Amino acid sequence: MDERIKFKTYKKDYDYSYMIGAFGTVELIKSSPGLVRAVYIHSRYQEKQYLETLCKNAEIPVCFDDAFITKISLKDNTLVLAVFNKFKRDLRPDEPHIVLVNPTDMGNLGSIMRTAAGCNIRNLAIILPSADVWHPKTIRASMGALFKLNVQFFEQFEEYQRVFSNHRYFPFVLDGGAYLDMRNVPQTRRFSLIFGNEACGLDDRFGFVGSRIKLPQTGAVDSYNLSVAVGIGAFVFAKGNNLI
Amino acid sequence: MDERIKFKTYKKDYDYSYMIGAFGTVELIKSSPGLVRAVYIHSRYQEKQYLETLCKNAEIPVCFDDAFITKISLKDNTLVLAVFNKFKRDLRPDEPHIVLVNPTDMGNLGSIMRTAAGCNIRNLAIILPSADVWHPKTIRASMGALFKLNVQFFEQFEEYQRVFSNHRYFPFVLDGGAYLDMRNVPQTRRFSLIFGNEACGLDDRFGFVGSRIKLPQTGAVDSYNLSVAVGIGAFVFAKGNNLI
Repeated sequence: MDERIKFKTYKKDYDYSYMIGAFGTVELIKSSPGLVRAVYIHSRYQEKQYLETLCKNAEIPVCFDDAFITKISLKDNTLVLAVFNKFKRDLRPDEPHIVLVNPTDMGNLGSIMRTAAGCNIRNLAIILPSADVWHPKTIRASMGALFKLNVQFFEQFEEYQRVFSNHRYFPFVLDGGAYLDMRNVPQTRRFSLIFGNEACGLDDRFGFVGSRIKLPQTGAVDSYNLSVAVGIGAFVFAKGNNLI
Repeated sequence: MDERIKFKTYKKDYDYSYMIGAFGTVELIKSSPGLVRAVYIHSRYQEKQYLETLCKNAEIPVCFDDAFITKISLKDNTLVLAVFNKFKRDLRPDEPHIVLVNPTDMGNLGSIMRTAAGCNIRNLAIILPSADVWHPKTIRASMGALFKLNVQFFEQFEEYQRVFSNHRYFPFVLDGGAYLDMRNVPQTRRFSLIFGNEACGLDDRFGFVGSRIKLPQTGAVDSYNLSVAVGIGAFVFAKGNNLI
Protein backbone atom coordinates (compact mmCIF):
# COMPACT_ATOMS: atom_id res chain seq x y z
CA MET A 1 0.00 0.00 0.00
CA ASP A 2 0.91 3.62 -0.31
CA GLU A 3 3.15 4.16 2.70
CA ARG A 4 2.36 7.87 2.75
CA ILE A 5 -1.16 7.16 4.00
CA LYS A 6 -1.27 7.27 7.78
CA PHE A 7 -4.57 6.42 9.36
CA LYS A 8 -5.31 7.89 12.75
CA THR A 9 -7.62 7.40 15.73
CA TYR A 10 -11.13 8.00 14.43
CA LYS A 11 -12.41 11.54 14.22
CA LYS A 12 -15.78 12.69 13.00
CA ASP A 13 -14.41 14.96 10.28
CA TYR A 14 -12.24 12.34 8.56
CA ASP A 15 -13.44 10.90 5.25
CA TYR A 16 -12.82 7.36 6.52
CA SER A 17 -13.79 5.19 9.47
CA TYR A 18 -13.11 1.71 10.84
CA MET A 19 -14.89 -1.61 10.84
CA ILE A 20 -13.62 -3.40 13.94
CA GLY A 21 -13.55 -7.21 13.93
CA ALA A 22 -12.97 -10.04 11.50
CA PHE A 23 -16.61 -10.95 10.93
CA GLY A 24 -17.64 -7.41 9.98
CA THR A 25 -14.54 -6.92 7.86
CA VAL A 26 -15.28 -10.02 5.79
CA GLU A 27 -18.90 -8.91 5.34
CA LEU A 28 -17.73 -5.46 4.28
CA ILE A 29 -15.25 -6.78 1.74
CA LYS A 30 -17.92 -9.02 0.27
CA SER A 31 -20.69 -6.39 0.12
CA SER A 32 -18.75 -3.21 -0.65
CA PRO A 33 -15.15 -3.97 -1.68
CA GLY A 34 -14.77 -0.60 -3.38
CA LEU A 35 -15.12 1.23 -0.07
CA VAL A 36 -12.29 -0.58 1.69
CA ARG A 37 -8.95 1.27 1.76
CA ALA A 38 -6.97 -1.20 3.83
CA VAL A 39 -7.32 -4.25 6.08
CA TYR A 40 -5.18 -4.66 9.20
CA ILE A 41 -4.47 -8.19 10.46
CA HIS A 42 -3.01 -8.93 13.89
CA SER A 43 -0.12 -11.42 14.13
CA ARG A 44 -2.25 -13.57 16.45
CA TYR A 45 -5.10 -13.93 13.91
CA GLN A 46 -5.66 -17.57 12.95
CA GLU A 47 -7.40 -17.39 9.57
CA LYS A 48 -4.90 -15.07 7.95
CA GLN A 49 -4.74 -16.93 4.66
CA TYR A 50 -8.48 -16.78 3.93
CA LEU A 51 -8.62 -13.06 4.65
CA GLU A 52 -5.46 -12.30 2.68
CA THR A 53 -6.85 -14.10 -0.37
CA LEU A 54 -10.14 -12.24 -0.06
CA CYS A 55 -8.28 -8.91 0.06
CA LYS A 56 -5.97 -9.83 -2.80
CA ASN A 57 -8.91 -10.73 -5.04
CA ALA A 58 -10.58 -7.40 -4.22
CA GLU A 59 -7.27 -5.52 -4.65
CA ILE A 60 -7.34 -4.30 -1.05
CA PRO A 61 -3.99 -3.60 0.67
CA VAL A 62 -3.26 -5.76 3.72
CA CYS A 63 -1.22 -4.36 6.63
CA PHE A 64 0.31 -6.08 9.65
CA ASP A 65 0.59 -3.69 12.56
CA ASP A 66 -0.46 -5.05 15.96
CA ALA A 67 0.12 -1.74 17.76
CA PHE A 68 -2.12 0.13 15.29
CA ILE A 69 -4.95 -2.38 15.73
CA THR A 70 -4.75 -2.07 19.52
CA LYS A 71 -4.76 1.71 19.28
CA ILE A 72 -7.72 2.02 16.93
CA SER A 73 -10.02 -0.73 18.14
CA LEU A 74 -12.46 -0.33 20.99
CA LYS A 75 -11.71 -3.74 22.49
CA ASP A 76 -8.45 -5.33 23.55
CA ASN A 77 -9.03 -8.57 21.71
CA THR A 78 -9.45 -7.17 18.20
CA LEU A 79 -7.47 -9.11 15.60
CA VAL A 80 -8.79 -7.59 12.37
CA LEU A 81 -10.02 -4.21 11.27
CA ALA A 82 -10.79 -2.49 7.97
CA VAL A 83 -10.39 1.15 6.98
CA PHE A 84 -13.26 2.24 4.73
CA ASN A 85 -14.34 5.41 2.96
CA LYS A 86 -17.46 7.14 4.18
CA PHE A 87 -20.00 7.27 1.36
CA LYS A 88 -23.08 9.15 0.24
CA ARG A 89 -26.19 7.34 -0.94
CA ASP A 90 -29.37 9.37 -1.25
CA LEU A 91 -32.69 7.90 -0.19
CA ARG A 92 -34.89 6.29 -2.83
CA PRO A 93 -38.11 8.27 -3.40
CA ASP A 94 -40.06 5.13 -4.35
CA GLU A 95 -39.21 3.11 -1.23
CA PRO A 96 -40.14 3.19 2.47
CA HIS A 97 -38.07 5.26 4.90
CA ILE A 98 -37.20 5.38 8.58
CA VAL A 99 -36.63 8.94 9.82
CA LEU A 100 -34.71 9.52 13.06
CA VAL A 101 -34.96 12.99 14.56
CA ASN A 102 -31.79 13.78 16.57
CA PRO A 103 -30.88 10.28 17.81
CA THR A 104 -28.22 10.50 20.55
CA ASP A 105 -27.07 6.96 21.27
CA MET A 106 -24.65 5.15 18.96
CA GLY A 107 -25.72 1.72 20.18
CA ASN A 108 -29.36 2.45 19.39
CA LEU A 109 -28.40 3.90 16.01
CA GLY A 110 -26.47 0.77 15.05
CA SER A 111 -29.25 -1.50 16.29
CA ILE A 112 -31.80 0.51 14.27
CA MET A 113 -29.69 0.08 11.12
CA ARG A 114 -29.79 -3.68 11.68
CA THR A 115 -33.57 -3.50 12.07
CA ALA A 116 -33.95 -1.38 8.93
CA ALA A 117 -31.87 -3.75 6.79
CA GLY A 118 -33.62 -6.78 8.32
CA CYS A 119 -37.09 -5.31 7.68
CA ASN A 120 -36.27 -4.37 4.07
CA ILE A 121 -36.63 -0.66 4.79
CA ARG A 122 -33.38 0.33 3.14
CA ASN A 123 -33.58 4.09 3.54
CA LEU A 124 -32.61 5.92 6.70
CA ALA A 125 -33.07 9.69 7.05
CA ILE A 126 -31.19 11.36 9.89
CA ILE A 127 -32.27 14.79 11.09
CA LEU A 128 -29.23 16.59 12.55
CA PRO A 129 -27.79 16.95 15.12
CA SER A 130 -27.31 13.22 15.62
CA ALA A 131 -25.00 10.67 17.17
CA ASP A 132 -22.20 9.89 14.71
CA VAL A 133 -23.44 7.40 12.11
CA TRP A 134 -19.85 6.68 11.07
CA HIS A 135 -18.30 6.16 14.49
CA PRO A 136 -16.73 2.70 14.86
CA LYS A 137 -19.07 2.03 17.82
CA THR A 138 -22.13 2.67 15.64
CA ILE A 139 -20.70 0.59 12.80
CA ARG A 140 -20.02 -2.24 15.22
CA ALA A 141 -23.51 -2.11 16.74
CA SER A 142 -24.94 -2.18 13.20
CA MET A 143 -23.03 -5.42 12.49
CA GLY A 144 -22.31 -3.94 9.07
CA ALA A 145 -25.96 -3.19 8.28
CA LEU A 146 -25.00 0.42 7.51
CA PHE A 147 -23.48 -0.77 4.25
CA LYS A 148 -26.82 -2.21 3.14
CA LEU A 149 -28.64 1.11 3.56
CA ASN A 150 -29.07 4.47 1.91
CA VAL A 151 -28.43 7.09 4.57
CA GLN A 152 -29.09 10.78 4.03
CA PHE A 153 -28.71 13.71 6.43
CA PHE A 154 -30.99 16.73 6.76
CA GLU A 155 -30.44 19.89 8.79
CA GLN A 156 -34.17 20.18 9.52
CA PHE A 157 -37.16 17.87 9.27
CA GLU A 158 -38.74 20.43 6.92
CA GLU A 159 -35.91 19.86 4.47
CA TYR A 160 -36.74 16.13 4.40
CA GLN A 161 -40.40 17.01 3.91
CA ARG A 162 -39.64 19.18 0.89
CA VAL A 163 -37.66 16.41 -0.83
CA PHE A 164 -40.04 13.56 0.01
CA SER A 165 -43.43 15.22 -0.12
CA ASN A 166 -45.12 12.16 -1.64
CA HIS A 167 -44.45 9.85 1.29
CA ARG A 168 -47.08 9.06 3.91
CA TYR A 169 -45.76 10.22 7.28
CA PHE A 170 -46.25 8.25 10.49
CA PRO A 171 -44.72 10.03 13.51
CA PHE A 172 -44.45 7.69 16.50
CA VAL A 173 -45.54 9.65 19.56
CA LEU A 174 -46.11 8.99 23.26
CA ASP A 175 -49.34 10.95 23.52
CA GLY A 176 -52.19 11.39 21.09
CA GLY A 177 -52.48 9.53 17.81
CA ALA A 178 -53.98 6.12 17.06
CA TYR A 179 -52.68 2.89 18.53
CA LEU A 180 -50.55 0.79 16.21
CA ASP A 181 -52.89 -1.92 14.89
CA MET A 182 -51.16 -5.08 13.66
CA ARG A 183 -54.34 -6.24 11.96
CA ASN A 184 -54.88 -3.06 10.04
CA VAL A 185 -51.55 -1.69 8.85
CA PRO A 186 -51.73 1.31 6.46
CA GLN A 187 -51.19 -0.07 2.97
CA THR A 188 -48.40 1.78 1.19
CA ARG A 189 -44.82 1.18 0.23
CA ARG A 190 -43.96 4.86 0.48
CA PHE A 191 -44.25 5.16 4.24
CA SER A 192 -42.01 7.28 6.47
CA LEU A 193 -41.79 6.02 10.05
CA ILE A 194 -40.62 8.97 12.13
CA PHE A 195 -39.07 8.63 15.61
CA GLY A 196 -37.83 11.24 18.09
CA ASN A 197 -34.80 10.89 20.29
CA GLU A 198 -34.15 8.89 23.45
CA ALA A 199 -34.80 11.70 25.91
CA CYS A 200 -37.80 13.58 24.61
CA GLY A 201 -39.44 11.82 21.67
CA LEU A 202 -41.06 14.01 18.98
CA ASP A 203 -42.08 17.54 19.82
CA ASP A 204 -45.51 19.08 19.34
CA ARG A 205 -45.09 20.18 15.73
CA PHE A 206 -45.23 16.52 14.68
CA GLY A 207 -48.88 16.61 15.73
CA PHE A 208 -49.53 18.25 12.36
CA VAL A 209 -47.41 15.93 10.27
CA GLY A 210 -49.22 12.91 8.80
CA SER A 211 -50.88 10.24 10.97
CA ARG A 212 -49.57 9.97 14.52
CA ILE A 213 -49.08 6.46 15.91
CA LYS A 214 -48.74 5.39 19.53
CA LEU A 215 -47.38 2.03 20.66
CA PRO A 216 -49.66 0.24 23.11
CA GLN A 217 -47.92 -0.20 26.48
CA THR A 218 -48.64 -0.36 30.21
CA GLY A 219 -48.12 2.58 32.54
CA ALA A 220 -45.25 0.72 34.24
CA VAL A 221 -42.71 2.39 31.94
CA ASP A 222 -42.51 5.81 30.31
CA SER A 223 -41.70 4.31 26.93
CA TYR A 224 -39.94 1.47 25.20
CA ASN A 225 -36.23 1.83 24.46
CA LEU A 226 -35.88 3.76 21.17
CA SER A 227 -34.37 0.90 19.19
CA VAL A 228 -37.12 -1.43 20.48
CA ALA A 229 -39.83 1.09 19.50
CA VAL A 230 -38.35 1.39 16.01
CA GLY A 231 -38.10 -2.41 15.88
CA ILE A 232 -41.79 -2.87 16.66
CA GLY A 233 -42.95 -0.11 14.29
CA ALA A 234 -40.69 -1.17 11.42
CA PHE A 235 -41.55 -4.84 11.78
CA VAL A 236 -45.30 -4.27 11.85
CA PHE A 237 -45.22 -1.90 8.84
CA ALA A 238 -42.84 -4.11 6.86
CA LYS A 239 -44.80 -7.31 7.54
CA GLY A 240 -48.14 -5.59 6.95
CA ASN A 241 -46.93 -4.41 3.53
CA ASN A 242 -45.27 -7.70 2.55
CA LEU A 243 -41.77 -6.26 2.57
CA ILE A 244 -40.62 -9.27 4.59
CA MET B 1 -28.49 6.35 59.27
CA ASP B 2 -26.39 3.68 60.89
CA GLU B 3 -22.86 5.01 60.50
CA ARG B 4 -21.40 1.51 60.67
CA ILE B 5 -22.78 0.74 57.22
CA LYS B 6 -20.21 1.52 54.56
CA PHE B 7 -21.32 1.02 51.00
CA LYS B 8 -18.66 0.17 48.43
CA THR B 9 -18.12 0.13 44.68
CA TYR B 10 -20.63 -2.37 43.29
CA LYS B 11 -19.74 -6.04 43.33
CA LYS B 12 -21.84 -8.92 42.10
CA ASP B 13 -21.87 -10.77 45.43
CA TYR B 14 -23.14 -7.87 47.56
CA ASP B 15 -26.76 -7.96 48.72
CA TYR B 16 -27.28 -4.39 47.51
CA SER B 17 -26.83 -2.37 44.31
CA TYR B 18 -27.22 1.20 43.08
CA MET B 19 -29.81 3.13 41.13
CA ILE B 20 -27.88 5.95 39.47
CA GLY B 21 -29.68 9.20 38.71
CA ALA B 22 -32.42 11.35 40.19
CA PHE B 23 -35.23 10.23 37.89
CA GLY B 24 -34.71 6.54 38.60
CA THR B 25 -34.24 7.15 42.31
CA VAL B 26 -37.58 8.96 42.59
CA GLU B 27 -39.30 6.17 40.65
CA LEU B 28 -37.71 3.59 42.93
CA ILE B 29 -38.75 5.37 46.13
CA LYS B 30 -42.29 5.64 44.81
CA SER B 31 -42.63 2.05 43.60
CA SER B 32 -40.55 0.12 46.16
CA PRO B 33 -39.67 2.30 49.18
CA GLY B 34 -38.99 -0.74 51.36
CA LEU B 35 -36.01 -1.74 49.18
CA VAL B 36 -34.15 1.55 49.52
CA ARG B 37 -31.41 1.60 52.17
CA ALA B 38 -30.12 5.12 51.54
CA VAL B 39 -30.24 8.01 49.08
CA TYR B 40 -27.15 10.09 48.30
CA ILE B 41 -27.62 13.68 47.14
CA HIS B 42 -24.84 15.79 45.61
CA SER B 43 -24.31 19.33 46.87
CA ARG B 44 -24.94 20.61 43.33
CA TYR B 45 -28.39 18.99 43.08
CA GLN B 46 -31.13 21.57 42.58
CA GLU B 47 -34.31 19.84 43.76
CA LYS B 48 -32.93 18.75 47.10
CA GLN B 49 -35.99 19.69 49.08
CA TYR B 50 -38.45 17.60 47.08
CA LEU B 51 -36.21 14.55 47.28
CA GLU B 52 -35.49 15.00 50.99
CA THR B 53 -39.20 15.20 51.78
CA LEU B 54 -39.86 12.09 49.70
CA CYS B 55 -37.15 10.21 51.61
CA LYS B 56 -38.31 11.47 54.98
CA ASN B 57 -41.87 10.32 54.33
CA ALA B 58 -40.60 6.89 53.35
CA GLU B 59 -38.17 6.81 56.31
CA ILE B 60 -35.16 6.50 54.02
CA PRO B 61 -31.83 7.90 55.28
CA VAL B 62 -30.39 10.72 53.18
CA CYS B 63 -26.62 11.18 52.87
CA PHE B 64 -24.56 14.03 51.44
CA ASP B 65 -21.26 12.77 50.11
CA ASP B 66 -20.15 14.16 46.73
CA ALA B 67 -17.01 12.05 46.59
CA PHE B 68 -18.99 8.83 47.17
CA ILE B 69 -21.44 9.68 44.39
CA THR B 70 -18.61 10.34 41.95
CA LYS B 71 -16.90 7.08 42.92
CA ILE B 72 -19.98 4.86 42.60
CA SER B 73 -21.73 6.34 39.59
CA LEU B 74 -20.90 5.43 36.04
CA LYS B 75 -21.13 9.01 34.78
CA ASP B 76 -19.43 12.19 35.96
CA ASN B 77 -22.58 14.25 36.10
CA THR B 78 -24.53 12.09 38.55
CA LEU B 79 -26.17 14.11 41.31
CA VAL B 80 -28.36 11.49 42.97
CA LEU B 81 -28.14 7.79 43.64
CA ALA B 82 -29.98 5.25 45.76
CA VAL B 83 -28.67 2.15 47.50
CA PHE B 84 -31.23 -0.65 47.35
CA ASN B 85 -31.49 -4.24 48.51
CA LYS B 86 -31.50 -6.97 45.91
CA PHE B 87 -34.74 -8.89 46.17
CA LYS B 88 -36.27 -12.23 45.27
CA ARG B 89 -39.64 -12.46 43.56
CA ASP B 90 -40.57 -15.79 42.03
CA LEU B 91 -42.36 -15.96 38.70
CA ARG B 92 -46.14 -16.23 38.69
CA PRO B 93 -47.33 -19.60 37.33
CA ASP B 94 -50.57 -18.09 35.96
CA GLU B 95 -48.95 -15.29 33.94
CA PRO B 96 -46.88 -15.02 30.74
CA HIS B 97 -43.08 -15.25 30.90
CA ILE B 98 -40.06 -14.13 28.96
CA VAL B 99 -37.16 -16.59 29.26
CA LEU B 100 -33.63 -15.44 28.42
CA VAL B 101 -31.05 -18.17 27.97
CA ASN B 102 -27.57 -16.87 28.89
CA PRO B 103 -27.92 -13.19 27.91
CA THR B 104 -24.50 -11.51 27.86
CA ASP B 105 -25.11 -7.78 27.38
CA MET B 106 -26.26 -5.57 30.26
CA GLY B 107 -27.67 -2.92 27.93
CA ASN B 108 -29.82 -5.51 26.15
CA LEU B 109 -30.91 -6.99 29.47
CA GLY B 110 -32.05 -3.59 30.78
CA SER B 111 -33.81 -2.77 27.52
CA ILE B 112 -35.60 -6.14 27.63
CA MET B 113 -36.82 -5.44 31.18
CA ARG B 114 -38.32 -2.19 29.90
CA THR B 115 -40.03 -4.08 27.09
CA ALA B 116 -41.34 -6.74 29.47
CA ALA B 117 -42.83 -4.18 31.88
CA GLY B 118 -44.21 -2.15 28.96
CA CYS B 119 -45.81 -5.21 27.36
CA ASN B 120 -47.35 -6.40 30.64
CA ILE B 121 -45.27 -9.56 30.69
CA ARG B 122 -44.15 -9.15 34.28
CA ASN B 123 -42.15 -12.33 34.68
CA LEU B 124 -38.58 -12.75 33.52
CA ALA B 125 -36.74 -16.08 33.79
CA ILE B 126 -32.98 -15.96 33.43
CA ILE B 127 -31.07 -19.13 32.61
CA LEU B 128 -27.54 -18.86 34.05
CA PRO B 129 -24.84 -17.91 33.33
CA SER B 130 -26.04 -14.42 32.52
CA ALA B 131 -24.97 -10.80 32.46
CA ASP B 132 -25.53 -9.30 35.92
CA VAL B 133 -29.17 -8.36 36.35
CA TRP B 134 -28.28 -6.24 39.38
CA HIS B 135 -25.35 -4.29 37.94
CA PRO B 136 -25.95 -0.52 38.01
CA LYS B 137 -25.52 -0.47 34.21
CA THR B 138 -28.36 -2.96 33.76
CA ILE B 139 -30.55 -1.11 36.26
CA ARG B 140 -29.90 2.14 34.43
CA ALA B 141 -30.69 0.65 31.01
CA SER B 142 -33.92 -0.76 32.47
CA MET B 143 -34.94 2.76 33.58
CA GLY B 144 -36.15 1.12 36.77
CA ALA B 145 -38.33 -1.47 34.99
CA LEU B 146 -36.57 -4.22 36.97
CA PHE B 147 -38.55 -3.16 40.03
CA LYS B 148 -41.82 -3.82 38.21
CA LEU B 149 -40.91 -7.41 37.39
CA ASN B 150 -40.63 -10.82 38.98
CA VAL B 151 -37.19 -12.14 38.11
CA GLN B 152 -36.11 -15.71 38.84
CA PHE B 153 -32.86 -17.49 38.06
CA PHE B 154 -32.40 -21.08 36.93
CA GLU B 155 -29.18 -23.06 36.57
CA GLN B 156 -30.56 -24.96 33.60
CA PHE B 157 -33.50 -24.53 31.21
CA GLU B 158 -34.68 -27.97 32.32
CA GLU B 159 -35.11 -26.63 35.86
CA TYR B 160 -37.41 -23.89 34.52
CA GLN B 161 -39.31 -26.52 32.54
CA ARG B 162 -39.90 -28.65 35.65
CA VAL B 163 -41.34 -25.72 37.60
CA PHE B 164 -43.47 -24.28 34.79
CA SER B 165 -44.60 -27.35 32.91
CA ASN B 166 -48.04 -25.92 32.16
CA HIS B 167 -46.79 -23.01 30.07
CA ARG B 168 -46.81 -23.08 26.28
CA TYR B 169 -43.23 -22.68 25.08
CA PHE B 170 -42.27 -20.56 22.07
CA PRO B 171 -38.51 -20.67 21.40
CA PHE B 172 -37.46 -17.91 18.99
CA VAL B 173 -34.99 -19.44 16.53
CA LEU B 174 -33.09 -18.34 13.43
CA ASP B 175 -33.72 -21.55 11.46
CA GLY B 176 -36.71 -23.84 11.31
CA GLY B 177 -40.02 -23.10 12.99
CA ALA B 178 -43.00 -21.13 11.74
CA TYR B 179 -42.89 -17.43 10.91
CA LEU B 180 -44.34 -15.11 13.53
CA ASP B 181 -47.82 -14.25 12.26
CA MET B 182 -49.26 -10.98 13.61
CA ARG B 183 -52.72 -11.92 12.39
CA ASN B 184 -52.78 -15.30 14.05
CA VAL B 185 -51.11 -15.09 17.45
CA PRO B 186 -51.38 -18.24 19.63
CA GLN B 187 -54.14 -17.57 22.14
CA THR B 188 -52.94 -18.14 25.70
CA ARG B 189 -51.92 -16.09 28.69
CA ARG B 190 -49.50 -18.72 29.89
CA PHE B 191 -46.95 -18.32 27.13
CA SER B 192 -43.18 -18.53 27.56
CA LEU B 193 -41.24 -16.59 24.94
CA ILE B 194 -37.73 -18.07 24.92
CA PHE B 195 -34.69 -16.28 23.48
CA GLY B 196 -31.05 -17.34 23.17
CA ASN B 197 -28.06 -15.09 23.63
CA GLU B 198 -26.52 -12.40 21.43
CA ALA B 199 -23.82 -14.55 19.87
CA CYS B 200 -25.42 -17.90 19.12
CA GLY B 201 -29.18 -17.85 19.69
CA LEU B 202 -30.82 -21.06 20.94
CA ASP B 203 -29.09 -24.37 20.43
CA ASP B 204 -30.53 -27.45 18.76
CA ARG B 205 -32.22 -28.96 21.81
CA PHE B 206 -34.81 -26.16 21.64
CA GLY B 207 -36.02 -27.80 18.43
CA PHE B 208 -37.88 -30.22 20.69
CA VAL B 209 -39.31 -27.66 23.09
CA GLY B 210 -42.75 -26.30 22.23
CA SER B 211 -43.48 -24.41 18.99
CA ARG B 212 -40.48 -22.76 17.38
CA ILE B 213 -40.97 -19.28 15.96
CA LYS B 214 -38.85 -17.41 13.44
CA LEU B 215 -38.98 -13.66 12.87
CA PRO B 216 -39.42 -12.73 9.20
CA GLN B 217 -36.37 -10.78 7.94
CA THR B 218 -34.31 -10.18 4.81
CA GLY B 219 -31.00 -11.91 4.16
CA ALA B 220 -29.19 -8.57 4.55
CA VAL B 221 -28.56 -9.24 8.25
CA ASP B 222 -27.89 -12.39 10.25
CA SER B 223 -30.48 -11.46 12.84
CA TYR B 224 -32.10 -8.57 14.66
CA ASN B 225 -30.41 -7.24 17.78
CA LEU B 226 -31.52 -9.40 20.73
CA SER B 227 -33.44 -6.66 22.52
CA VAL B 228 -35.20 -5.77 19.25
CA ALA B 229 -36.12 -9.42 18.61
CA VAL B 230 -37.55 -9.71 22.14
CA GLY B 231 -39.35 -6.40 21.56
CA ILE B 232 -41.04 -7.65 18.40
CA GLY B 233 -41.95 -11.06 19.86
CA ALA B 234 -43.19 -9.69 23.18
CA PHE B 235 -45.22 -6.91 21.55
CA VAL B 236 -46.93 -9.22 19.07
CA PHE B 237 -47.79 -11.83 21.72
CA ALA B 238 -48.92 -9.21 24.26
CA LYS B 239 -51.08 -7.33 21.75
CA GLY B 240 -52.45 -10.54 20.26
CA ASN B 241 -53.56 -11.68 23.72
CA ASN B 242 -54.96 -8.30 24.83
CA LEU B 243 -52.32 -7.80 27.52
CA ILE B 244 -51.77 -4.25 26.25
